[in-house]
Amino acid sequence: MTRTLSLGAFIMATGHHVSAWRHPDVPANGGLDFPLYKRLAQVAEAAKFDAVFVADSVAAPTAEIASRMARSDHFEPLTLLSALAAVTERIGLVGTVTTSYNEPYHVARKFASLDHLSGGRAGWNLVTSDAAAEALNFNRQEHFGHAERYARAREFHQVVTGLWDSWEDDAFTRDKASGQYYDPAKLHVLNHEGEHFRVQGPLNVARPPQGRPVIVQAGSSETGRELAAQTAEVVFTAQTSLAAARDFYNDLKGRLPRFGRSADDLRIMPGVFVVIGQSQAEAQEKFEAFQELVEPQVGVALLSRMLGNFDLSAYPLDGPLPELPLTDSGQRSRQLLLTELAGRENLTLAQLGRRIAGGRGHYSLIGTPTQIADELQAWFEGGAADGFNVLVPHLPGGLEDVANHVVPELQRRGLFRRDYSGSTLRDHLGLKRPANRYTI
Amino acid sequence: MTRTLSLGAFIMATGHHVSAWRHPDVPANGGLDFPLYKRLAQVAEAAKFDAVFVADSVAAPTAEIASRMARSDHFEPLTLLSALAAVTERIGLVGTVTTSYNEPYHVARKFASLDHLSGGRAGWNLVTSDAAAEALNFNRQEHFGHAERYARAREFHQVVTGLWDSWEDDAFTRDKASGQYYDPAKLHVLNHEGEHFRVQGPLNVARPPQGRPVIVQAGSSETGRELAAQTAEVVFTAQTSLAAARDFYNDLKGRLPRFGRSADDLRIMPGVFVVIGQSQAEAQEKFEAFQELVEPQVGVALLSRMLGNFDLSAYPLDGPLPELPLTDSGQRSRQLLLTELAGRENLTLAQLGRRIAGGRGHYSLIGTPTQIADELQAWFEGGAADGFNVLVPHLPGGLEDVANHVVPELQRRGLFRRDYSGSTLRDHLGLKRPANRYTI
Ligand SMILES: Cc1cc2nc3c(=O)[nH]c(=O)nc-3n(C[C@H](O)[C@H](O)[C@H](O)COP(=O)(O)O)c2cc1C
Ligand SMILES: Cc1cc2nc3c(=O)[nH]c(=O)nc-3n(C[C@H](O)[C@H](O)[C@H](O)COP(=O)(O)O)c2cc1C
Repeated sequence: MTRTLSLGAFIMATGHHVSAWRHPDVPANGGLDFPLYKRLAQVAEAAKFDAVFVADSVAAPTAEIASRMARSDHFEPLTLLSALAAVTERIGLVGTVTTSYNEPYHVARKFASLDHLSGGRAGWNLVTSDAAAEALNFNRQEHFGHAERYARAREFHQVVTGLWDSWEDDAFTRDKASGQYYDPAKLHVLNHEGEHFRVQGPLNVARPPQGRPVIVQAGSSETGRELAAQTAEVVFTAQTSLAAARDFYNDLKGRLPRFGRSADDLRIMPGVFVVIGQSQAEAQEKFEAFQELVEPQVGVALLSRMLGNFDLSAYPLDGPLPELPLTDSGQRSRQLLLTELAGRENLTLAQLGRRIAGGRGHYSLIGTPTQIADELQAWFEGGAADGFNVLVPHLPGGLEDVANHVVPELQRRGLFRRDYSGSTLRDHLGLKRPANRYTI
Repeated sequence: MTRTLSLGAFIMATGHHVSAWRHPDVPANGGLDFPLYKRLAQVAEAAKFDAVFVADSVAAPTAEIASRMARSDHFEPLTLLSALAAVTERIGLVGTVTTSYNEPYHVARKFASLDHLSGGRAGWNLVTSDAAAEALNFNRQEHFGHAERYARAREFHQVVTGLWDSWEDDAFTRDKASGQYYDPAKLHVLNHEGEHFRVQGPLNVARPPQGRPVIVQAGSSETGRELAAQTAEVVFTAQTSLAAARDFYNDLKGRLPRFGRSADDLRIMPGVFVVIGQSQAEAQEKFEAFQELVEPQVGVALLSRMLGNFDLSAYPLDGPLPELPLTDSGQRSRQLLLTELAGRENLTLAQLGRRIAGGRGHYSLIGTPTQIADELQAWFEGGAADGFNVLVPHLPGGLEDVANHVVPELQRRGLFRRDYSGSTLRDHLGLKRPANRYTI
């Protein structure tokens, strides 16, 4: 069998472009429009995507400029994905849930429940929260520091996967004649006592169909990569050139053996921002229609968030990016990248903000389906990616463009499936079903 | 318009009878069978029930006897109800979520999300947790005491309803031309600082379609009644006679004026356990088929749980109920009721356990559709109930019996709707949509 690539569809409200909501083709209330999400998931499923992916934050921005961005109202991922599970059959459902402001028992339980509801299609994007504002909604006055966030995340992962193994796969005998509902020898009480959590168990959900929902991560710091090498099964990442993506790919895959894992145990899927036209010029024109809608202050607010919520509002729009202290948030690598870009091209604040309004630091492809497929193929065959997380400027149109034009081109080239061959997200991604820790 | 009664359908795994899972008509894996739940919700909706209701506990029992009961594996309520939202149109979706081991921001957000997903059909059964084992899954070594549970619940309710009012109903203008996504004057930051919680807000979900999801409660202690009188919009309760139910009803409704509320602001819905036959004898026979499947130890384990997890395993099955210390758990009133019953009828432990195996302390009706409708009518017209939460021995059969035989009889009598007249759970229950606290 030839190796094929994986595709995830990033479905978030009005789309990835910060001003998409203002575009005439876009339903501006997309963030809370379930029929729209249902359509998105069904479009992605018809195109045989591995999964839809939902980002998250447990806070809403309150600065005045937030009132000009579509970021304050959207579905909560676990409720949304559960609803989508009921109206789809095969596509994976990946949701972001932070380890910083949650309890592992709830998270283990809800993803196990989603995995059962969907017949084995759940994935958890395990993040450490990059938005300090979240702390204020959870009894704290400040965000945990970077190191503590990761220490907590590591222990959180340990507890959650432990709880998923509470029951062996065949623990529930449900034997009507004898009256035995489960075999007590196949129940395992976790009794976790760690630095951050104390959780007895067992989980009150049978072992998930996938054994464990798929673990996704997107950290790129040194600590983040180490955690990913140890525990992640899919990694999302923002990379802007084939060379950088290949370095990241090799670095991360190279860490796996130290944790007793092999290259096949982890799929690396960079984000790619895609705008499609019948010609290069048409694609560019499409993109410009979004760019024209970007208010300078909105671009700068987005920039500020990508720099770790460094407040830029006091700096002149037509001045340069100020010198920034290195952030402790999860945005340090992006900060370095953007600082470098601004310097190299001598961009003003407003220009830099506008530059990232679409791709937000992800690799951006604006062109024909053939051009786009060429690039994806080059990355895939060039050792820079196992697949891609597709970001589109606007929804639903942008996703339909990808489904109708890029996917068929990838299929023609034998790079992407024409139909699902399995039923679980693990099947789609080519990931093994993990054995229960108590049976190996 | 004549006053009509409300009906809730308790849908939980294999049914309310502790041994239902062993019955030949019952899918023993019901707890994790989504197609079954979908069928249940659709049956209840076709019969025009106000809502389906899902109970919960955030722990699984681990004593040896638990392996003979169907209590250890079931869906988590919010994920389950979200999935059901996608496959139903009108029926209300009420889920139990404890205030003892949760964060108000998450709870406010998930119910708001469910309310948007379902077009205004969400209800929250706000409980204080009656199972001490839950504490051990959430970093604690023991359960909060009764008073603290309620103090926490009260503040929890305050925070959640405050977060639901973060945005005025018309805050999101989403004006493409001007670029204003929301009107900043209609955003309200909660800034809650209380004894148990510190939550800044705002919620990152627009105000729910219902203004607030419906608040349901089931506490019956003095403190529980006070909280219900102040905050609940529906109260579930276990009552065993019309006289006792009427006392409870009058007591609770009598408390409302002190909180500036009127009788119409709260619907009282006792649980009723229903077994239906074409004749009284047939109904009794049906019931006996379940009773025969009850192992004595299983009945006693259920009894133990209903007595506040008092361990009864050391006492002889054919001896009397031992003297019990008054429990601090949420089961004190049930404890008194059962102690009184055991004394009056001189029951052994095994007999008492068997007695509660079906109704679990709820009012039990075993008879023809006419007999059952007569009783429900007597309670409804006798000032003991605004409606009923229907519990059936087994699923899906028991619910289909109610839908096919009892509901039509209630409709013929003009006591129950023939079709939904509104689209939200509040509409079904006849509850007003609350105004946003910042606009009154
Ligand atoms: C492509 C991508 C998507 C991300 N999505 C989210 C998200 O939805 N929510 C969130 O809180 N953090 C998100 N993050 C942040 C990271 O997952 C991570 O927790 C953070 O960057 C800190 O990790 P680091 O310091 O190792 O980079 C995302 C990061 C990347 C690169
Ligand atoms: C009909 C009924 C259903 C209940 N369902 C649940 C439940 O699903 N989960 C739970 O933790 N407690 C449940 N309870 C417990 C109560 O909601 C309440 O929190 C507990 O009884 C303590 O309150 P009290 O001491 O005021 O009675 C239920 C109680 C009743 C009467």
